Amino acid sequence: MKQFVMESAGVNKQGRLTLGGVDTVYLAEKYSTPLYVMDEDVVIKNCLAYKNSIDKFYGGRGKVLFASKALSAVFMYKIVKECGLGVDVVSGGELYTALKAGTNPADICFHGNSKSEQELFEAISQNVGRIIVDNKEELLRIEKIAGSLNKKVKILFRIKPGVDAHTHQFIMTGQIDSKFGVAMENGEALDIMRLAATLQNVEVVGADCHIGSQIFEVLPFKVTAEKMIDFMAQVRDEVGITLSELNLGGGFGIKYTEKDDPVPYEEYIKLVHDTIRDTCAKHNLELPFIYMEPGRSIVASAGLTLYTVSAVKEIKDVRNYVLIDGGMCDNPRYALYKSEYSLCVANKAAENTDYVATVAGKCCESGDLIQEDVPLTKPCAGDTVAVFATGAYNYSMASNYNRNPRPAMVAIRGGKDRLVIKRETYEDIIRNDVF
Amino acid sequence: MKQFVMESAGVNKQGRLTLGGVDTVYLAEKYSTPLYVMDEDVVIKNCLAYKNSIDKFYGGRGKVLFASKALSAVFMYKIVKECGLGVDVVSGGELYTALKAGTNPADICFHGNSKSEQELFEAISQNVGRIIVDNKEELLRIEKIAGSLNKKVKILFRIKPGVDAHTHQFIMTGQIDSKFGVAMENGEALDIMRLAATLQNVEVVGADCHIGSQIFEVLPFKVTAEKMIDFMAQVRDEVGITLSELNLGGGFGIKYTEKDDPVPYEEYIKLVHDTIRDTCAKHNLELPFIYMEPGRSIVASAGLTLYTVSAVKEIKDVRNYVLIDGGMCDNPRYALYKSEYSLCVANKAAENTDYVATVAGKCCESGDLIQEDVPLTKPCAGDTVAVFATGAYNYSMASNYNRNPRPAMVAIRGGKDRLVIKRETYEDIIRNDVF
Repeated sequence: MKQFVMESAGVNKQGRLTLGGVDTVYLAEKYSTPLYVMDEDVVIKNCLAYKNSIDKFYGGRGKVLFASKALSAVFMYKIVKECGLGVDVVSGGELYTALKAGTNPADICFHGNSKSEQELFEAISQNVGRIIVDNKEELLRIEKIAGSLNKKVKILFRIKPGVDAHTHQFIMTGQIDSKFGVAMENGEALDIMRLAATLQNVEVVGADCHIGSQIFEVLPFKVTAEKMIDFMAQVRDEVGITLSELNLGGGFGIKYTEKDDPVPYEEYIKLVHDTIRDTCAKHNLELPFIYMEPGRSIVASAGLTLYTVSAVKEIKDVRNYVLIDGGMCDNPRYALYKSEYSLCVANKAAENTDYVATVAGKCCESGDLIQEDVPLTKPCAGDTVAVFATGAYNYSMASNYNRNPRPAMVAIRGGKDRLVIKRETYEDIIRNDVF
Repeated sequence: MKQFVMESAGVNKQGRLTLGGVDTVYLAEKYSTPLYVMDEDVVIKNCLAYKNSIDKFYGGRGKVLFASKALSAVFMYKIVKECGLGVDVVSGGELYTALKAGTNPADICFHGNSKSEQELFEAISQNVGRIIVDNKEELLRIEKIAGSLNKKVKILFRIKPGVDAHTHQFIMTGQIDSKFGVAMENGEALDIMRLAATLQNVEVVGADCHIGSQIFEVLPFKVTAEKMIDFMAQVRDEVGITLSELNLGGGFGIKYTEKDDPVPYEEYIKLVHDTIRDTCAKHNLELPFIYMEPGRSIVASAGLTLYTVSAVKEIKDVRNYVLIDGGMCDNPRYALYKSEYSLCVANKAAENTDYVATVAGKCCESGDLIQEDVPLTKPCAGDTVAVFATGAYNYSMASNYNRNPRPAMVAIRGGKDRLVIKRETYEDIIRNDVF
């Protein structure tokens, strides 16, 4: 029985790759390619695994927020709501989409290091549950807007705990040299708490942190939790504010290739819970309400992308290129971060993977590669290639580079497929051109 | 008098940055930010400089094609047509946009390393002037489609001349280890010519090459021209086809920062012309019709992007961050290639640039930077920051990452501004979501 990095991927009697029991070659034919496919059953399972763990360890004093930047789309906000999770949004566009999908504003935390005045106005008018404040200018802007709307806004501050989670430089955000938040180590974090305490239209309810992405160790999370509780005790002692909420962010790693070994959520949540309990006891602090914000770990492993091979170039003694009908326009992660992916020829999924090739996109740029020198079954023109674990940061980062329309997305639930995002048309692409 | 990397940028009496004589702070207020601004007069000047040079040296036996991937938009195709240039497109979406803008299909060359069957069908049905064929599978696909439509398609082959233009790895495309085209050095290029000679529905009229991007030396272009003419002689002698057209591609460098020193087009065109003339004489070959495909060098230096500063973070002994209301969603080039840009605080354009800061975007990702440690006038929240020379590969590579709507674009001609691309709305962003 063939194993893939995605738990719900398999091979059917025709030797074709399946996802959630559905034949992916059938999907490619029915909806055309490139095509994003999401296994909703896996998304739901991941949502509930987080929710059940946080319910178990924090007993009603915790909440999971889906970090919707990983995959912001109407159908996702609906699934998340159905599972009893809240959402984290980072822009007016994500807020708009979440609200259109029926998300309760009280279940929304609004993040972002550079929110515009307009976005803050939208968030405050719509009564989002919490705003995570990034910096002093933003704090004063919120005070002004909230005042003008005669509202009092519940806020948390984004704190840099100074933790380095040993991950890719691009996605390492807990250290002091970061565009996000205010630092603990130089007193900025305490100073902004002091300033907030003097304001009329904000209520400081907590502290927020995020130490990075795609993290496979539990120790950075444990150290961060300790530092954040220590900080909350310091705020109580030195500023006189009792913070009742702690947002621990996300960052949990997922399996892109066989060598990735993610920590089970429950193990992570138990360790962090125990750390928080013990550190609170040390400071004689009440246990805060806990937020967690998984994004990638909810959706990445639930999704794959299907492409059609247009040609195979075997350059003797140099390299084999497999050319596909998508590329960095629908998945820019290899171009941006050299992200690893595993792949499969979907219509030859039962065969050996003894061919090595570089899978290249259709954009007019040499760096437009999906993966270099990756094992595959030898493909030919017309074959369907699946790239695994593309559920996060693919659709959400897609562009119209070279005016390629963005792919459709299909979701699978209980063995049935349905369109959740329509394929862009050429007409969509020129919609904003002025004639 | 202050100098900027963009020739048409200046400072007015109010000490504000101008482009083509128009106050950029006024544009930011009128159209909101982020905002792309293009100086059409500079675009036209660049188009005509290429056209006049090619007319002068090739006397009617050459044509300039705008490489529209650099900035594919209806207004651009209209300008290009007005200047008497053709266009190069690399996808069905670019073809669609060019045709909607009124481009004559005969003036279009269709490129791309992985064209889909649908795209080839569209190109052939619409009677595009030339198709630049990338590989064998594509050649056979064209033969079949052209046959079914009862047409004969004029084609050139994309050839890898084996020239390394010493540029960034991502955009170096003339060497054998590339996803583009067929190689000279291993006989692939001759083989595909032999195959094409046996087909009924294609007419091989020429050879095409492209050795890279943002190149500042003339020698690689000279070497390439020699190799391509040598190859054309070899095709005549060994395959018996006389190729009458040579497409030399693009790749001419532009001034992103003061240290960039581009070669004047005319100097480049003269050198290449002389090389072609001498090499043809050596082989007793008629001078071919010449295509050139500048993209970046026509639009990059004509455009800038305006942003509003939301906050300034001075982290003592670490770094200053200037946070803006756009980022990698509207300009992913620093995240992708560490591309250099020069910047200016538009409302303080006459002041000293003695402050050093990292300009960071609003996307929820540490790598979302526009430039690191760049000289600026000290900005504060509410200021307008201009990033220079963003006319190429900014709008065309923009995404809705974090569901940020893509900016509007304004064009300036004769001191007058007009909207050429509308700002995306939240409604646009969810248009394809299925409810």
